[in-house]
Amino acid sequence: MKKYSKNQLQRYPIYLKYLRQLKEQGHTSVSSPLIAKELGYSEEQIRKDLQLVSNEAGRPKKGRNIDKLIETLENFLGYSSQANALLIGVGHLGNALMNYPFFEEMGIKIVAGFDSDKEKIGSLVNEKPILAMEELSRSIKEYKANIIILTVPANVAQNVTDFAVKAGARAIWNFAPIHVNVPGDVVIEDVNMASSLAVLWHRYLNLKNID
Amino acid sequence: MKKYSKNQLQRYPIYLKYLRQLKEQGHTSVSSPLIAKELGYSEEQIRKDLQLVSNEAGRPKKGRNIDKLIETLENFLGYSSQANALLIGVGHLGNALMNYPFFEEMGIKIVAGFDSDKEKIGSLVNEKPILAMEELSRSIKEYKANIIILTVPANVAQNVTDFAVKAGARAIWNFAPIHVNVPGDVVIEDVNMASSLAVLWHRYLNLKNID
Repeated sequence: MKKYSKNQLQRYPIYLKYLRQLKEQGHTSVSSPLIAKELGYSEEQIRKDLQLVSNEAGRPKKGRNIDKLIETLENFLGYSSQANALLIGVGHLGNALMNYPFFEEMGIKIVAGFDSDKEKIGSLVNEKPILAMEELSRSIKEYKANIIILTVPANVAQNVTDFAVKAGARAIWNFAPIHVNVPGDVVIEDVNMASSLAVLWHRYLNLKNID
Repeated sequence: MKKYSKNQLQRYPIYLKYLRQLKEQGHTSVSSPLIAKELGYSEEQIRKDLQLVSNEAGRPKKGRNIDKLIETLENFLGYSSQANALLIGVGHLGNALMNYPFFEEMGIKIVAGFDSDKEKIGSLVNEKPILAMEELSRSIKEYKANIIILTVPANVAQNVTDFAVKAGARAIWNFAPIHVNVPGDVVIEDVNMASSLAVLWHRYLNLKNID
């Protein structure tokens, strides 16, 4: 398998988002300089990133075919795979994610939620059942769902992670605002809302200083 | 103002998260090599990042004082400032964010929500009023709230952004799954859930290939 850097992997969905938008606007081809200008990356980087996933080179005058590039990126990102995912922690955020229509476009289907709250267990959220934590192991096997979406409070995140790993979780998408540890044979990726806010906040302060 | 790269700014909240966790566990000091090992960055990078925000150097044998470092990072990230924010789009995700307790810890206070749905206007979410879009301009002034949290569907994101910018928004935190354009005197930062998922997914596939 080719080696991709974390930054590089993060850029592909951003390219895809932009290409879908161009398509929506009626465009049929796109050049690296245009993507670079619009998204604020260097032309060199765009060219390198796209060459790595696509066999087709851009034609000097005409650029790349948008439909083909969208298809290439969707395949690369696994958006056509519809992997089953289970969500742990059906609070406000968990509830929102279970109702979030964009996940299926990203190839992820949340098939059940888990919670320790007896009031929630047995109910449905967006037509998916909320189950007790004890059923996690069975569900991972039954749904072939190795992706676990973690939306629990920070103070229980490590314990819940340990429990999920024991139950067979191999990939954890962590929305809890805390760093959790996993064994070497499990992958974890944090959604760092705070990191994104830090960038916004710093740029905003710079903007005010310039005024 | 010092210049920070985007990647650097994104790392500070991750350091802070980890330091709070160490403090919780009873630790009082921390070394750059430990942070590096635990979070997967190079020692060199940690040292450089921390030196840029803190005047105090780590002591060769004892490391850095955790309490002081937490305070330094909290101040740098503006977590003590309690900036007012307004949220546009009170769907599932917007609703969840209005109820998300961690924002206040990040120095952001959502004071009102906005929606075009007449059923929602006039109601309260987490004790905050849901207002009509026409009131956005007045609210930005009244609450001194230049930070706009955007949680609208992709297909209206650009129109809503244009409207918000005209109403006086200067910083937009975009949760909509689409790239939107803003004028040069407005800052925008996307929360890219898809980017985070791309990294998780790729690592997971690599893991399976190694098995």
